[in-house]
Amino acid sequence: MTTSYNESDQALLNKLGQRIRELRNTSDLSQEKLAFTCDLDRTYIGSVERGERNVSIINLQKIATALNVELHELLNF
Amino acid sequence: MTTSYNESDQALLNKLGQRIRELRNTSDLSQEKLAFTCDLDRTYIGSVERGERNVSIINLQKIATALNVELHELLNF
Repeated sequence: MTTSYNESDQALLNKLGQRIRELRNTSDLSQEKLAFTCDLDRTYIGSVERGERNVSIINLQKIATALNVELHELLNF
Repeated sequence: MTTSYNESDQALLNKLGQRIRELRNTSDLSQEKLAFTCDLDRTYIGSVERGERNVSIINLQKIATALNVELHELLNF
């Protein structure tokens, strides 16, 4: 069951997803490899990149660490 | 019921809480005023500042907007 968000919240989640995908591709990582490095599920990473998840700060930090960027760099979009 | 986090996750939540408190005080806002501006509950803001909440990106953006900083500035600690 996917949660529905208001327009501005959905725009935020879409930007986050695109930013993660962009950084992942730049690091030449598959979703699977990123998920393994973060100790998160591959389908979760996929749903985050599609803007379907209201990601928590703890998971944002895990993803930033796996992408070798600081948390604030991950969210500088 | 408070969730317990591992050491590094708890350190992250503590740093976030301190950062929000610091920015709130610099803006001379009470927890109540910040909560009202973000459309969040005052007790929630209090628990975030005490490092008790694994805050989602949507709420992080609400708090950043209410404190007149960009999301990445809020998380630059």
